[in-house]
Amino acid sequence: MKKIGVLLSGCGVMDGSEIHEAVLTLLAIDVAGAQAICIAPDINQHHVINHATGEEMTGETRNVLIESARIARGDVKNLKDIHSLNLDALILPGGFGAAKNLSDYAFKGADFTVLPDVAEAVRSFYEAGKPLGFICISPVIAAKVLGKENVEVTIGTDQESASNIEAVGATHVNCRVYNIHASNDGKVVSTPAYMLGPTIKDVAQGIEKLVNAVVALA
Amino acid sequence: MKKIGVLLSGCGVMDGSEIHEAVLTLLAIDVAGAQAICIAPDINQHHVINHATGEEMTGETRNVLIESARIARGDVKNLKDIHSLNLDALILPGGFGAAKNLSDYAFKGADFTVLPDVAEAVRSFYEAGKPLGFICISPVIAAKVLGKENVEVTIGTDQESASNIEAVGATHVNCRVYNIHASNDGKVVSTPAYMLGPTIKDVAQGIEKLVNAVVALA
Repeated sequence: MKKIGVLLSGCGVMDGSEIHEAVLTLLAIDVAGAQAICIAPDINQHHVINHATGEEMTGETRNVLIESARIARGDVKNLKDIHSLNLDALILPGGFGAAKNLSDYAFKGADFTVLPDVAEAVRSFYEAGKPLGFICISPVIAAKVLGKENVEVTIGTDQESASNIEAVGATHVNCRVYNIHASNDGKVVSTPAYMLGPTIKDVAQGIEKLVNAVVALA
Repeated sequence: MKKIGVLLSGCGVMDGSEIHEAVLTLLAIDVAGAQAICIAPDINQHHVINHATGEEMTGETRNVLIESARIARGDVKNLKDIHSLNLDALILPGGFGAAKNLSDYAFKGADFTVLPDVAEAVRSFYEAGKPLGFICISPVIAAKVLGKENVEVTIGTDQESASNIEAVGATHVNCRVYNIHASNDGKVVSTPAYMLGPTIKDVAQGIEKLVNAVVALA
C-alpha cells in the first residue's frame, strides 16, 4: 500500500490547517486505496485565533503537532522524522497554518521564508521523484522551494499571491476549484480549494483529483 | 433550500466533536443540496486532551462554541438561539464531546444527564416532526431524551453502551458502519461511524446515507 504523507500545520483555518481540506485529503487517500500518514512540525503556532470572532487569543500558546493530532485522531508523526517513514508522496493542505507556521508568507509576502524542515522535505521529495500535492495557499511553499525548477502552481484568483508566486521564480496558472494543475512531469500538483471555494463540495472535487493524481504517480 | 443544523461539541475526538464525522456531515449536506448551519453551546469544555498523547492538559480551558468554530470556518451559532434559526432538521456528530460536553455520559454511564439546552432542542425537533440524525456515540443522547418514544438507535458493537441505551428505555439495534437505522417513521436516524470504523471511507458511507435520509424528510 502506498504511503502518502499529509503535512499538517495545526487545526483550524485561521491559525493552522484548513480542517475541511485536511479531512477531504485523508478521505480521498483512503478511497484511493493508499495509506495517509499525518505529519507536523513540533513547534509552537505563530498565534492562536478565536475562530468565532477572528480575534487573536493573546496569552494562549498552542503546539502545531499537538493541535494537528486532533485532525489525525491522535496519530501524528514529527516532521523531524519524515525520512524514517518511507513515504511515497507528500501533500500539504492549506489554511493559514501553511502561511503562518510552515512559512511566514502571511506576514512577509514575497519576501517570505519557509520553515527549514518543510523546505528540506519538499526539496528531498522532489529530488527523489516523489509526487507532491499543494492545496489552497500551500502552493506558495512549492513556488519558494522549487522556483528554480520552473514549477507551475495554482492559487485561485488572489492577484497578490499570484504575483508573489511569480516574484519567487515560479509560474502561476489559473485553475478552477474543481480542477488541478500538474507541473514538472506531474510530480507537482496543485488545486485552489478554499482560495476559491465557495463551498465544501466544490473544494472536495479538486482535492479528490489532486490526491488521485499524486497517488497514481507515487 | 433546506437548513440542516449540525450540533458541534468542540473540535477533536477526545474532548469535542469527532472532526472527520463533522466534516463528512457538512460535505454530505452540501452535496445533497441543503445548507448546513453549525451550532454549539457557549460553555467550557469538560477538559482539554492532548490528542498526541491522550493526556489531559491540566490548567487549560477551552470554550465549546469557540473551538467548534474551527470546524465551522468561523460561522457557528449559539445553541441558545437555535429556535430563531428556522432549521428543518438537526444532526449530532460524535466524538467524546457528545459524551463529555453535551452530556456527562462518558463519566456516569447509564445514570447520565443531557445538557438541558441539548435535550430541549432534540425534544422540540422531535415534537415538531423534524428529522434528527445521531452519529457515533451521540445516539445515547437520543436514547436518553426520546426513550419514552420507543426510539431505536445504533451504537456499533460496544456492549456497555448498548446496555446503557436499553437501560434508559430505548432499543439498541445492530448496524454496520456503512449503513443507518431509521426509527420512529424515519424521523430518528443513526449510524455507528467511528464506534466501528475502521477508516474514514467506511465512516463516510454511513454518514452520507444518514444525511440523505435526514434531508429527504426535512
